[in-house]
Amino acid sequence: MVRTNGKKIFDLVGADAVFTTCDYLKRYLTGFLTENGYVLVDANGTTLYTDARYIEAAEKTLRGTDVTVAEIDRFSRPTEILKNYKTVGIPLDVTVYPEYKKITELGVEIVDATPAFRNAMAIKNDWELANIQKACEIAEDGFLATLPEIKEGMTESEVAALLEYKMRTFGAQGVSFDTIVAFGAHAAVPHHETGDTKLRFGDEILIDFGCKVNGYCSDITRTFLFGDDKKHEEFKTAYGHVLSAHNLVKEKLCSGMTGAEGDGIARKYLTQAGYGKLFTHSLGHGIGLNVHEFPYVRASGTDVLTDGMVFSDEPGVYLAGEYGIRIEDTVTLENGKVKSFMSKTDRNLVIL
Amino acid sequence: MVRTNGKKIFDLVGADAVFTTCDYLKRYLTGFLTENGYVLVDANGTTLYTDARYIEAAEKTLRGTDVTVAEIDRFSRPTEILKNYKTVGIPLDVTVYPEYKKITELGVEIVDATPAFRNAMAIKNDWELANIQKACEIAEDGFLATLPEIKEGMTESEVAALLEYKMRTFGAQGVSFDTIVAFGAHAAVPHHETGDTKLRFGDEILIDFGCKVNGYCSDITRTFLFGDDKKHEEFKTAYGHVLSAHNLVKEKLCSGMTGAEGDGIARKYLTQAGYGKLFTHSLGHGIGLNVHEFPYVRASGTDVLTDGMVFSDEPGVYLAGEYGIRIEDTVTLENGKVKSFMSKTDRNLVIL
Repeated sequence: MVRTNGKKIFDLVGADAVFTTCDYLKRYLTGFLTENGYVLVDANGTTLYTDARYIEAAEKTLRGTDVTVAEIDRFSRPTEILKNYKTVGIPLDVTVYPEYKKITELGVEIVDATPAFRNAMAIKNDWELANIQKACEIAEDGFLATLPEIKEGMTESEVAALLEYKMRTFGAQGVSFDTIVAFGAHAAVPHHETGDTKLRFGDEILIDFGCKVNGYCSDITRTFLFGDDKKHEEFKTAYGHVLSAHNLVKEKLCSGMTGAEGDGIARKYLTQAGYGKLFTHSLGHGIGLNVHEFPYVRASGTDVLTDGMVFSDEPGVYLAGEYGIRIEDTVTLENGKVKSFMSKTDRNLVIL
Repeated sequence: MVRTNGKKIFDLVGADAVFTTCDYLKRYLTGFLTENGYVLVDANGTTLYTDARYIEAAEKTLRGTDVTVAEIDRFSRPTEILKNYKTVGIPLDVTVYPEYKKITELGVEIVDATPAFRNAMAIKNDWELANIQKACEIAEDGFLATLPEIKEGMTESEVAALLEYKMRTFGAQGVSFDTIVAFGAHAAVPHHETGDTKLRFGDEILIDFGCKVNGYCSDITRTFLFGDDKKHEEFKTAYGHVLSAHNLVKEKLCSGMTGAEGDGIARKYLTQAGYGKLFTHSLGHGIGLNVHEFPYVRASGTDVLTDGMVFSDEPGVYLAGEYGIRIEDTVTLENGKVKSFMSKTDRNLVIL
């Protein structure tokens, strides 16, 4: 499977060369992760420039691809090489001002490569989809292995540590973001900071988590009950509506819709059910080498959703001081329809 | 203890205001972590601007500090507020070009705040030192709890996952960087990517790791043997010399030296012992909210080392295809002398 994207970006940008020092863009262009050096793409192909410390690993990983590896001095000025070109594409949105200034001082004409990267990266190729699929499977496996070990008195941090450990043992190369574990009313804060609160019988538990495979992220949220204290009737009713909204998106969202139309499917349903004001965030966001990227599936979203895009379907309702519910899958569009990467974990309300 | 640094930076920069959207600089100025909003410091004090999703947590954490919290619309243009000032300090080294451009278009004069941040952040205050101390203790506790669970046949990734889990259970808020676990000759690659290699009797093990407490990092490396196959005589000799270099730095390095002089202590010793060419990297780097920051303790280093700075003492020797040895502590300078944050783990050669 093709894991390099240099030629695609070069053709899209249309400059004499494309240049970046940004880690995740270097990975996108070459399929190789390095926090060192830079990538240059020109008519002759894609070259990764890195220093002696990384050259062996780079050559080993990139053998058989269309990427050439070249050694540079660790303290060299990377921009010097750009003097050979008339126009150079650089992704301005991730280029710090001093680097931009150095390049302009070389007398080359700068073309902003941000739109090319953003648009190309939104449509995943087979290799990228396979990595995301794997990251989703590991996340689900980790979650399922964690559930039986959740006990009364454990802290949110302990549950997060356990889940992250399980994902690692299933092959995750790290987490996509700091795992959110929220017990009880903490779940009402969409970005709750996992802490030392202890789990009690009857608590609801919301876990928002994900992991990485070859840099590609998964993102998933499950909300469930730790025992049934019979005091969660409102919660259960709301849960049913969030699940219906989540499922309705999977059924109705299709290629060609805008982000606003996609978001509208869940928002309209939840509004009619009386939960509109409690759905305080957007339906979803793109997922790839970054856990939040283009496209955005939100009320003001003009991005058009197309086949090969990967994003989250995550409606949620939050009642401050009471409860929070979010049900999130990482999904893609295939043959015009939503296809979820998640198949192992239950979306129906689980009571441990 | 003082955990905010707005006034210090404002005085150092000398502009009418200091502005940043950079996560770790916002944390440095306020002591609060947010991936949202921005921080503005002017003659009236430090203000964190964030949207409704984060306001509750920000207010709770910053109560009793000199930081004011103000709510902004999530999609507002943050730079608008700068129109009120004539000169604005922004840290150009972490400011992307589009943000820089927007600020210049407001007609304000930009002062580069990079040197002020770099110099101020290098000298840690008591709160910062206490966090680094805690991060070092957790790293050591995690390592000691992992050692007895290392068994033949485990993969590098499994050992890394276990160590990260242990650190989390001891209170780490995450890792400082991806844990490096290298078995056998893999240790000869200073930036080895932890993989699926299985542990065999007699292997050497190199582990480079660290964790975070309130954003502040620890960084530590230990090299040891998994059983003694009696084939590691060269390794043992080299180990003794790396340890001597490590200890010599602790003894001789003092405030007022340049990075080059500090690096030279270890480099001169190892060169005289015949390992000069195998010591392929610098002696150390600053450690704080970033695991690599100012000051740099390297052969070309002109940074002057002073009391309150925190950096690594990590000499290493690497013989390709054979072995790699690195012994690293996170240390500080106190009353002119080196003081290590590490006290629990053995630096003498451990044979499991």
